Amino acid sequence: MNRRGILFVVSGPSGAGKGTICKALVDNNPNVFLSVSATTRKPRPHEQEGVHYYFIEEAEFMQRIKDGGMLEHAVFCGNYYGTPKHKVDQMLDAGRDVVLEIEVQGAMKVRSKYPEGVYIFVLPPSMHELKNRIMGRGTEPPEVIDERLKTAAWEYGHITKYNYILLNDSIDKAVERFRAIIKAEGCRVERNTEFIEEVLRS
Amino acid sequence: MNRRGILFVVSGPSGAGKGTICKALVDNNPNVFLSVSATTRKPRPHEQEGVHYYFIEEAEFMQRIKDGGMLEHAVFCGNYYGTPKHKVDQMLDAGRDVVLEIEVQGAMKVRSKYPEGVYIFVLPPSMHELKNRIMGRGTEPPEVIDERLKTAAWEYGHITKYNYILLNDSIDKAVERFRAIIKAEGCRVERNTEFIEEVLRS
Repeated sequence: MNRRGILFVVSGPSGAGKGTICKALVDNNPNVFLSVSATTRKPRPHEQEGVHYYFIEEAEFMQRIKDGGMLEHAVFCGNYYGTPKHKVDQMLDAGRDVVLEIEVQGAMKVRSKYPEGVYIFVLPPSMHELKNRIMGRGTEPPEVIDERLKTAAWEYGHITKYNYILLNDSIDKAVERFRAIIKAEGCRVERNTEFIEEVLRS
Repeated sequence: MNRRGILFVVSGPSGAGKGTICKALVDNNPNVFLSVSATTRKPRPHEQEGVHYYFIEEAEFMQRIKDGGMLEHAVFCGNYYGTPKHKVDQMLDAGRDVVLEIEVQGAMKVRSKYPEGVYIFVLPPSMHELKNRIMGRGTEPPEVIDERLKTAAWEYGHITKYNYILLNDSIDKAVERFRAIIKAEGCRVERNTEFIEEVLRS
């Protein structure tokens, strides 16, 4: 069954563990490609080109946005971050599954371009943890808490636009569930139409 | 995450191996209940009540159909076979997943009652095998071949009404994929609305 790769987009509140889950998933899974973001930020000492980020100049970044070469992009602290479209498509065309770790707003942009993708929302291990993350140590000013509450509410309000929730009660369990989702999605009828047509023809 | 069990309906051409796959799946998987059919056929020496079939009288079978107690039913060689609704609902309510092995026509009837179920079509390991199964040893009369061709065409024409195809290239791989489908379906957003609402409330 040769088929196009599947795009898996992973979001969730910061600290829910999505980075750890995605990295654990791609280790020992050569068919899954973890998308690397492009950024205009300068590399930190330990960071490698093409591993942690693609480091590019702002002028090039702007040009790529203009040419439709970024699936989505955002600005943090004056630096641009984005997902290069070319590499994602190249991997999908080669039949490799692609994992994109991205915040909710970016994920929704990607969804408008790749409605056939699989959208996964990572939930932190407990309500308690979730509250702690928002409330901090109780020393933050109310406006910071307020901002976090708003962000969390906005993010969680988008869960129903995702296909799956991935409860991060343990990294191992979450990764196992993620693997199951990848395997199951590969069996979905709508992803095997060519194969089914072949069966019907014969 | 407490949730209702999920109904998995498994169909496929005869000899595709769906029975073997389903049995291998429920072994070592106590949360999955393999539905047992009811029949008016007399038990064979090795057959046990409630294990191979529920053996019931024709009058009772008719009454159950009338009362809506059968999810679907069919007649083979003058005997009735059907799926008792009560047991399926009882297991689903208890949060157990239920596997129903059933031919295409019956599966389509079940689908009209349980659209939220997961419908899986088992494909035999190869086109070659598929043709052999239809053509037999070349000694069958043309009308038998013709009948088999019609049945196969009708069955395969319904694949797109299923959610997943399960290629039986090896029993182990097919069972592993089935397990993945069960695990993945348990993570689907629409099956966790109560849990998500709980998260949103908090």
